[in-house]
Amino acid sequence: MNISEFKKNGHMIIDWIADYFENIEKYPVKSKSSPGEVISKLPACAPDRAEKFEKIFGDFEKIIMPGITHWQSPSFFAYFPANNSFPSILGELLSSALGAQCMSWATSPAAAELEEAVMKQLAKIIGLPESFCGVIEDTASTSTLCAALSAREKYSDYSINSEGFGPENKFTAYCSGQAHSSIEKAVKIAGIGKNRLRLIGCDKNYAMMPSEIFAVAAIGTTGSTAIDPLRAIGRICKKYGIWLHVDAAYAGSALVLPEMRYMINGVEYADSFVFNPHKWLFTNFDCSAYFVKDKAALIKTFEILPEYLKTSEKSAVNNYRDWGIQLGRRFRSLKLWFVLRSFGVSGLRKIIKKHIELAQYFAEKLSAENGFEIMAPHPLSVVCFRFKPRAGISQEKIDAFNAGLLEKLNSSGKLYLSHTKLGKDFVIRMAIGQTGTEKKHVKAALDTIIKTAKSMSK
Amino acid sequence: MNISEFKKNGHMIIDWIADYFENIEKYPVKSKSSPGEVISKLPACAPDRAEKFEKIFGDFEKIIMPGITHWQSPSFFAYFPANNSFPSILGELLSSALGAQCMSWATSPAAAELEEAVMKQLAKIIGLPESFCGVIEDTASTSTLCAALSAREKYSDYSINSEGFGPENKFTAYCSGQAHSSIEKAVKIAGIGKNRLRLIGCDKNYAMMPSEIFAVAAIGTTGSTAIDPLRAIGRICKKYGIWLHVDAAYAGSALVLPEMRYMINGVEYADSFVFNPHKWLFTNFDCSAYFVKDKAALIKTFEILPEYLKTSEKSAVNNYRDWGIQLGRRFRSLKLWFVLRSFGVSGLRKIIKKHIELAQYFAEKLSAENGFEIMAPHPLSVVCFRFKPRAGISQEKIDAFNAGLLEKLNSSGKLYLSHTKLGKDFVIRMAIGQTGTEKKHVKAALDTIIKTAKSMSK
Repeated sequence: MNISEFKKNGHMIIDWIADYFENIEKYPVKSKSSPGEVISKLPACAPDRAEKFEKIFGDFEKIIMPGITHWQSPSFFAYFPANNSFPSILGELLSSALGAQCMSWATSPAAAELEEAVMKQLAKIIGLPESFCGVIEDTASTSTLCAALSAREKYSDYSINSEGFGPENKFTAYCSGQAHSSIEKAVKIAGIGKNRLRLIGCDKNYAMMPSEIFAVAAIGTTGSTAIDPLRAIGRICKKYGIWLHVDAAYAGSALVLPEMRYMINGVEYADSFVFNPHKWLFTNFDCSAYFVKDKAALIKTFEILPEYLKTSEKSAVNNYRDWGIQLGRRFRSLKLWFVLRSFGVSGLRKIIKKHIELAQYFAEKLSAENGFEIMAPHPLSVVCFRFKPRAGISQEKIDAFNAGLLEKLNSSGKLYLSHTKLGKDFVIRMAIGQTGTEKKHVKAALDTIIKTAKSMSK
Repeated sequence: MNISEFKKNGHMIIDWIADYFENIEKYPVKSKSSPGEVISKLPACAPDRAEKFEKIFGDFEKIIMPGITHWQSPSFFAYFPANNSFPSILGELLSSALGAQCMSWATSPAAAELEEAVMKQLAKIIGLPESFCGVIEDTASTSTLCAALSAREKYSDYSINSEGFGPENKFTAYCSGQAHSSIEKAVKIAGIGKNRLRLIGCDKNYAMMPSEIFAVAAIGTTGSTAIDPLRAIGRICKKYGIWLHVDAAYAGSALVLPEMRYMINGVEYADSFVFNPHKWLFTNFDCSAYFVKDKAALIKTFEILPEYLKTSEKSAVNNYRDWGIQLGRRFRSLKLWFVLRSFGVSGLRKIIKKHIELAQYFAEKLSAENGFEIMAPHPLSVVCFRFKPRAGISQEKIDAFNAGLLEKLNSSGKLYLSHTKLGKDFVIRMAIGQTGTEKKHVKAALDTIIKTAKSMSK
């Protein structure tokens, strides 16, 4: 593809994307593709000769598109959102064209410095104290792993990095039973061990013992967006010298609203904090904002300086390769910068506030319907509910009914919801947060959910 | 930004990218920006109100562009390439617009199945045995960490994941002293410890002891692209039951050429293998191809299944979240598919072959010049050299001269080179592999290098 072909194909794709967003509501939200359907249409070998872009793009439309689940649909209410925006898409397009690998300051000075500037702006926007210092990671999984490793190293005086685990592995990590699976994964990867991760009920006392290292407070759990009591946990962590990591992957974006900052009351006790602009801040996946208080501990955990990476800046610069796991890094700050400026802080607030209000509206309307139960508090934009087809029915039957209801709703193509368990109850999660979601989409969802549940229970 | 503004701005950016590639040779390859120069022009706060895209884009051109090091310049010869192509940019653009989060099969069936298909095609293209099974990770750092963790778990019978390190940490890892820094990083993160990573000279015997777990063979070291003797290492690993990981991050792309497959003679002994299409296969960063023989060991190391991630497919599908560290995943297979089809295997071969020939041409011409020394074999597209200004000069002075020469060359803006140490010698690395690099760019580099060195030595 030469430059003039690129222009032609690029314009075509921009128009295609515009059409896609214009017509996104016409697609089934969750793909109706069956396992093996896409791969059966793909050849076993790559072609020997170059193919025309028209042909490749035709296959994209014919083979790939029917297998796409439309995360950007305004009726995508599953999991957490991974919302998007046009300025973010254009920022990512520029980053991918420049193709800069941002491992060191020298390999892209503007990328390193824009990242520093944007992360400072972001910390201010969400009300983080100035003692925090930020870096963009890919996902909260990675950010939380960075926190676990920094804690491990700081409390072992960096001896595990050098010597490996010695005869004593005294570490324990804590989080609530509703905290995200990435915490278990991080504790496993770091060699601490899943069985040393203690799950604590949110209603119990946090009576921690010395020799512990790592606690994770969830601001907005994945199941029901519960908010752990940060100040109370923070005081205990401070007393015993425990690394406190705050996982606000989804809920962090809501901190753009001053009235939501109560959620991080006590954040000054935290050692690290993560939230994902790629979830609810209109910045397309991936973009995870990781903030730490002790920058030196982070860098000391990850820095490497082989000869071939030495550069000659005389003054201090940030070489972000030493702030995380990967050496290679994309220029992610550009899309985030485009988003912050294109929306403005007031614009971000307006949409986030609308999403929260829509969730409250949804909960209110649904709870007024016979048979529907709201299963957890809903301080943000996620509502957990279930339908009880009749009184006196067993727990197993209620769960089975709701699993069937979810399956039926999702296979309708009209909307996409996910589920979790709260206590022993199977609950359906309505997560509102797509960029284009308006009241009419929530109303349509309500209507579909109510009609489907009632017709199934007849 | 609404849809019609997106179309307008999108077309503008496509044209800008076309112009950028048309004029890329006019930019200084390495940014001339000084530390702090970019950030000093950026405000401390994000704007409260939305800004016009024209204004944001104007700042991108004025503030950001002068701080960009042009990785896609045909005169970028530093580090390893991170090359790019128009089909890859368009693939990434579509992925970012769809904004699909590809953690599970259900969250994007086409993404999961295209990844499976493309990785199978890729394995064939580079001549990997069919026993290998692939997944796309972000970087080789992550792929190598996955290998180290899988090895740790397999050899501890998955007990470290569950119990953490116990009283005995008997693990040892091996690689050559020229292997990549990501191996040290992986060994640290996994809790094995840097001091248990033994660096072995390539010319010594690989006399390994039982109770070891992990060896890394480099196919194309970062310093000089040396090729470790895979079959000899593989035999020892097999004898002692050691996990053998092959790091071909850069050189793997050259395996598209059948005549280069001698490099992986013995690959059937390997347990895992990584190479980065984002280095030398025209697929923009990030895209790392990780292949394993024992898929179950990989999945067992990483799988998690909280309630909210359970899906209801009746038959076996790949949930790639369990194949690596991150839960969230971008739709990376799309750009790789566009590249494989747009170039065709013969097209890929042609350019890679040209790059290797250009490196041989460069080495031949430079070695014919008085004072220049080629410092290592150059089987691929990287040539390590230095200039000896006069006979009898001390080691320190030769090193200092070459560091000064490198600095002067890079600050000219005409080309960008990097360096390493081989033994005690400071050497300059000429890495050829940008998509647009032609003989004229190599000739111009030769001319600049020779003239600069000779004028400095006068």
